Amino acid sequence: MTSSHPWVVGVDLGGSNLRVAVYRDLGAAAASCCAAGTSLAQEPAAVVKRPVGDDRRMESIVERTVACINDVLGQVGVSRVAVVPVGVGVAAMLSDRKGTVANSPHLGWRNVAFGPALARRLGPARPVGVYNDVNAIAYGEFGVGAGAGARDMLCVYVGTGIGGGLVMNGQLVEGATNCAGEIGHVKVAWGEDAAPCNCGQRGCVEAYVGGSYVQARIRRELANGARSLAIDLAGGDASAVNPGHVDAAAADGDPWALALWTELAPLFAVALGNAITLCNPDRVVLGGGMLGRTPTLRDQAVVALSLVTPPALLDPVDIVMATLEDDAGLVGSALLADAGVSLI
Amino acid sequence: MTSSHPWVVGVDLGGSNLRVAVYRDLGAAAASCCAAGTSLAQEPAAVVKRPVGDDRRMESIVERTVACINDVLGQVGVSRVAVVPVGVGVAAMLSDRKGTVANSPHLGWRNVAFGPALARRLGPARPVGVYNDVNAIAYGEFGVGAGAGARDMLCVYVGTGIGGGLVMNGQLVEGATNCAGEIGHVKVAWGEDAAPCNCGQRGCVEAYVGGSYVQARIRRELANGARSLAIDLAGGDASAVNPGHVDAAAADGDPWALALWTELAPLFAVALGNAITLCNPDRVVLGGGMLGRTPTLRDQAVVALSLVTPPALLDPVDIVMATLEDDAGLVGSALLADAGVSLI
Repeated sequence: MTSSHPWVVGVDLGGSNLRVAVYRDLGAAAASCCAAGTSLAQEPAAVVKRPVGDDRRMESIVERTVACINDVLGQVGVSRVAVVPVGVGVAAMLSDRKGTVANSPHLGWRNVAFGPALARRLGPARPVGVYNDVNAIAYGEFGVGAGAGARDMLCVYVGTGIGGGLVMNGQLVEGATNCAGEIGHVKVAWGEDAAPCNCGQRGCVEAYVGGSYVQARIRRELANGARSLAIDLAGGDASAVNPGHVDAAAADGDPWALALWTELAPLFAVALGNAITLCNPDRVVLGGGMLGRTPTLRDQAVVALSLVTPPALLDPVDIVMATLEDDAGLVGSALLADAGVSLI
Repeated sequence: MTSSHPWVVGVDLGGSNLRVAVYRDLGAAAASCCAAGTSLAQEPAAVVKRPVGDDRRMESIVERTVACINDVLGQVGVSRVAVVPVGVGVAAMLSDRKGTVANSPHLGWRNVAFGPALARRLGPARPVGVYNDVNAIAYGEFGVGAGAGARDMLCVYVGTGIGGGLVMNGQLVEGATNCAGEIGHVKVAWGEDAAPCNCGQRGCVEAYVGGSYVQARIRRELANGARSLAIDLAGGDASAVNPGHVDAAAADGDPWALALWTELAPLFAVALGNAITLCNPDRVVLGGGMLGRTPTLRDQAVVALSLVTPPALLDPVDIVMATLEDDAGLVGSALLADAGVSLI
């Protein structure tokens, strides 16, 4: 699927920052990376980073994105008529493959035709594709990160929320409305007792294991008088305890921390195991700020996986941590555009 | 992906029967069917059906399969040197894309290299692909059945057990070891109270909603004295009550039948809704003997779906019943081989 243009641009449009990078010979790098099955730190030839700022009107973001793209291409001396694919990963739920944003709480957008506006402004020499940010991260890890050499990959990011991406047969699965991979909203509980999720439903795995929910629960239980080593680890201030402190306390055998992790780990394992059972990947890539800081929770979840996943599906899977950190979305967007995925 | 050979063979190797059919211009029929978005009764040019019989040694099955293939091709007068792809759907768990059977309780096979043996015996003019039977059914419904015109399809068959198949971006998802689509073994309960499944794990949706489990539960509860209209519907014989009787009783407001369906419907809905959330299909095709006889259970599950599936994922889905009945696997295997999927 890789078409390997000499230059390709990746854009990461998040809630805080707009980052734009230009890569040289990225497709060839990904091909060799894939053949070797090893991760590659793929450095951009030029990169700019700007705060998204307060003016989040779509037209204004389009103008600033175009200015950043022209900036990085100018830095490396690419002519205005050379064809350079542009991939944009955006922190949003999309509703099609043409860059229509159904909903982005980060940007305050609802039903905004971002892709078409950006494509018009960039012109024919800059074919553009718009991707969900976690899908872009997944494809970046698949191309040059922890997923290199895999064919069927599931990527799960646990940060403040939980997002995911699927690569099947070497291709990103976008789904009917470009929403595939929404593992954060699979249900691990149902009925009136299930935890409420910000999405409006109940029982989503995100509402139990998503970082902001875990943080809120820690606050609540400690404020209600729970005693834990985690408070000492946070310098004696219960309100400063974060999931990393709880993880360290659990590793040390602290009863409250262990009980909390022992409740949450199987819920994450069920969501992950069910996805493995349905999709039969050969690689699972885990990442995100919450999972990165909670190795004990991660280990407990991996142990629980074996109880909830048929061996025929679990045995062929390598479960690994993401390697590209903040650059995964940038390079993933660039790789997707380079491969011609959903160009507008 | 369709390459459209003039003739193509489909084989359905089940627990009871070996069926072999030859189709003419199948790829062209599927293409027009897909464009029109309508189901097509795709009649084979010739078909043979034999009992699998008692001799289930692999070599013996290979010989009989080859004889049937030569039989149907002889009936339509295809020369021995003309290239005719052969697709075989087999009631088995596979372990690769070369037709290795990991396990088939129906055939009594474990780790049997069925595909390579069949390919050797058929020779180069008969390129052969071996597929899981439910994957073949899914692809048949996708090509010329209830999935025609879809791009991203999830097929779920509830018979004695529960199987499934995924078509994403118009391609069958086989997964790393050709086991993708195993929705029957996603967990809807966990821990010691979860229902035991024949797979050896607990809490699989199949262990609650699979036909043989539902049948066993009906028997057990009625033998223990439960009273229900379903017994009258079965002619007064509690041991003759099947899920169809329970469904009719539930539709009539029978308290025991309604309570059972009200427990099971949300479990099926959670498994289905989570798969929709992860894969974002535009079509869900439901089939199988159990679901075909239980419209009330099906309706309850569809209502429950809206509680456990994000609207952005549920709204784009058409949920329909399978249309090809027993021929889905035959025509699906033929379509897969015609498209060149995993030919050995």
